[in-house]
Amino acid sequence: MTQTEPEHDPSEQTFDVVVLGAGAVGENVADRAGRRGLSVAVVESELVGGECSYWACMPSKALLRSGSVLAAARAVPGAAEAVTGGVAARAVLARRDTMAADWDDSGQVKWLDGAGIELLRGAARFTGPRRLEVRDAGTGAATTVVARHAVVVATGSEPVLPDLPGLATARPWTSREATSADRVPGSLAIIGGGVVAAEMATAYTDLGSRVTVLVRGARLLAGLEPFVGEAVTSALVDAGADLRLGVQVERVERDASGVRLHLSTGDVVVADEVLVATGRRPRTADLGLDAVGLEPGSRLEVDDRMQVTAVDGGWLYAAGDVTGRVATTHQGKYDARVAGDVVAARFSADGGGEHWGGPVEAAEPWSRYRATADHEAVPQVVFTRPEVATVGLTEDAARDAGYPVRVVRYDIGSVAGAAIAADGYQGTAAIVVDTEREVVLGATFVGPDVAEMLHSATIAVVGQVPLSRLWHAVPAYPTVSEVWLRLLEGYGL
Amino acid sequence: MTQTEPEHDPSEQTFDVVVLGAGAVGENVADRAGRRGLSVAVVESELVGGECSYWACMPSKALLRSGSVLAAARAVPGAAEAVTGGVAARAVLARRDTMAADWDDSGQVKWLDGAGIELLRGAARFTGPRRLEVRDAGTGAATTVVARHAVVVATGSEPVLPDLPGLATARPWTSREATSADRVPGSLAIIGGGVVAAEMATAYTDLGSRVTVLVRGARLLAGLEPFVGEAVTSALVDAGADLRLGVQVERVERDASGVRLHLSTGDVVVADEVLVATGRRPRTADLGLDAVGLEPGSRLEVDDRMQVTAVDGGWLYAAGDVTGRVATTHQGKYDARVAGDVVAARFSADGGGEHWGGPVEAAEPWSRYRATADHEAVPQVVFTRPEVATVGLTEDAARDAGYPVRVVRYDIGSVAGAAIAADGYQGTAAIVVDTEREVVLGATFVGPDVAEMLHSATIAVVGQVPLSRLWHAVPAYPTVSEVWLRLLEGYGL
Repeated sequence: MTQTEPEHDPSEQTFDVVVLGAGAVGENVADRAGRRGLSVAVVESELVGGECSYWACMPSKALLRSGSVLAAARAVPGAAEAVTGGVAARAVLARRDTMAADWDDSGQVKWLDGAGIELLRGAARFTGPRRLEVRDAGTGAATTVVARHAVVVATGSEPVLPDLPGLATARPWTSREATSADRVPGSLAIIGGGVVAAEMATAYTDLGSRVTVLVRGARLLAGLEPFVGEAVTSALVDAGADLRLGVQVERVERDASGVRLHLSTGDVVVADEVLVATGRRPRTADLGLDAVGLEPGSRLEVDDRMQVTAVDGGWLYAAGDVTGRVATTHQGKYDARVAGDVVAARFSADGGGEHWGGPVEAAEPWSRYRATADHEAVPQVVFTRPEVATVGLTEDAARDAGYPVRVVRYDIGSVAGAAIAADGYQGTAAIVVDTEREVVLGATFVGPDVAEMLHSATIAVVGQVPLSRLWHAVPAYPTVSEVWLRLLEGYGL
Repeated sequence: MTQTEPEHDPSEQTFDVVVLGAGAVGENVADRAGRRGLSVAVVESELVGGECSYWACMPSKALLRSGSVLAAARAVPGAAEAVTGGVAARAVLARRDTMAADWDDSGQVKWLDGAGIELLRGAARFTGPRRLEVRDAGTGAATTVVARHAVVVATGSEPVLPDLPGLATARPWTSREATSADRVPGSLAIIGGGVVAAEMATAYTDLGSRVTVLVRGARLLAGLEPFVGEAVTSALVDAGADLRLGVQVERVERDASGVRLHLSTGDVVVADEVLVATGRRPRTADLGLDAVGLEPGSRLEVDDRMQVTAVDGGWLYAAGDVTGRVATTHQGKYDARVAGDVVAARFSADGGGEHWGGPVEAAEPWSRYRATADHEAVPQVVFTRPEVATVGLTEDAARDAGYPVRVVRYDIGSVAGAAIAADGYQGTAAIVVDTEREVVLGATFVGPDVAEMLHSATIAVVGQVPLSRLWHAVPAYPTVSEVWLRLLEGYGL
């Protein structure tokens, strides 16, 4: 811990590092910075653990898992005979409650305590560089908090409600209500075609809702390879969801019969609840960003050290959704590790020289002080059925970035391991190859239970392992991973 | 195709390359050699497709899969409620029949035809260098077959029955009978503690047999990290198997009540059937190896080009179990690709120069002409419950090889993705790190459904991706693969 200067104001608290937001990202920043001896405080106005723990990753995957394992069992004769009926909705919701720790953050608070990190409960606003006012939501009492060295903003993001007539008063669900609902609506309309929309359509169809998905664009999961959206769409339709592509909602109203959504086509969809999943924005509106020369509500653009580029002095950092770089928990945690390590290396007594990658200022890409993977090596899993697992660049993105590209696709169902895994296994794998360096730029897997196959591709992409070497990475027989062999053969090996 | 010389003897057939054995290994050799224009024949006395297709990988995994998916469903509330009872044995056996193509090889014969590979049905014996006699099992008619350039032996392996009094006449099962049985015995004794023993103990316990496993050594799966055998042992015992470690069978007899196994402890185990799974030997006893200066029954030692080292002239190759290198289908197929490519490069008109790795003679390790991965980068999956997935060196093997080693272990159940995957998920992951180069030398995963996680480790090991770079390979949240992050943190990143 650096030496504490004399405090002049008793109501003022000083820490080496102040982290705004105690979600997974903020926790990781605090942990990494604190490990090297800096005093760290995190400021949180809601639950410690953040969106991911209570209203996103954990509860959403808990809602999806029961349907997933039942579907897997139904696809294998010898097991299928023992499966009678669908998911038990009440038990799914109860398990979801457990996975969300019953929305009680005492476990995570205990973890912070154990790590020696100070928790300040309240809402933080900048009053100047390295100075914040933290206001307790209950009492309204304000404290001044000073960061001796660095402030890291990790306040995440919040859903954006589109400006649709009647929507705001129709009590729409956002991802929070969808992941924390304590009953299953008889019918659910979902506006949106991204990850939240696709996952919640799958979960609520499993749970017995009649689900209607209203997608503005021409396909689901539009940022991914086109065959992804096709596969998920067709599976959702088979499962009984009503999926409408290329439609707009023009107006919404809620009456005694539920929510009525008036579409651009003239159709009206009536549902008990409506989930709006059309996007998120950085949660920076109420941080007093103007006091440090930034625009409230804007995203905090950072360099690969996670330092906010528009602020001088090397004291302001950001990580996670708030940066607008990548909006997933795992990549936010990755950014958090970089941010925490950079802050620790710069400001702790032992510096950064002896750690991997050399001194922080001179650090190269792919050192621990540069979030290099954010650019072209980001993984993502969508826990729909089929699952979707992607990393790196899509074909289009790779071409746009100027790479000479060849794509190899293979029908996963043709692999022996897939035939064993499930009768009628349907899936697709694709790799995007840089034909000049002969490395994998991106990979996409769609199919039952492909989530755990992704990390192989992530290591190949991040490690820039040449195809000629991947040839020697033998997939065990008969696993589904043997699709790797087929992909390489498809390239010509 | 190289130019055909005039044939003098009409009963003599000449091919550029003759492959002995049409299992997965022989098929792959033939395919790779044939692609480059060489004329290729394969000689097979049993079913085209070999052990793996009919009496090993495929039927054994089919026997295991139904129990696996049911166990996964039972471990997730919300799904568990819908599971009533165990596996339907009759349906499992029927599915197994399908996976073994009903022991009909017409599909594989068709594949050979399509690839332009000549199939010679019969048993082959060397009569001299590059000369073989192929005898039709039915008619007894013999043909002389001459290989213009190369012979590749891929005849696999066969079970060894230990020399136990009474065993031979007790009609013991080997892996063939265990994987192709058309009824489930009420009780099954298994002699052995390796992969076949562990997998069949799991399968037959699922199917309702009372299983007793008699292991000579102190643990199951003795070649793997010690925690592997412990986990599988404890799961088998929980599932109701009777597992006895450190016991020897001294004598066996079959009478009307079944098979009686007299143990070194004085105990007698009685079972309807006994499976002997104590090891395999190369299937070379009847190949006439003496005609080419080799000892019948011996393994065919090869270099990394798959050339048999004890025979001069560069015409004799071997791949698969027969070499004694690695006894798995996938690694045999890998060796087969190398052997086929080497033969093609040496003897086809276009040579090997323009392919990856440069000319075949000057090829370096990790080129397509060297089976480099066989030494320290071999993957293996054991489809028990928990599953076991390993690659590369164990801690002991790494130390024995002289590497400076550190092992990091992590409880997979502590990963968020595992908590989602199954209530009470139990598993362990370990990496063996070369502390000098800071690369992964080996990895072991034990736990439900870890099979598809293995390829990530295989790529890390084969690619020799430094830990500092693996740090940037972000596992998606919440997948079980996040254990990678914990392992790297455990190392100190």
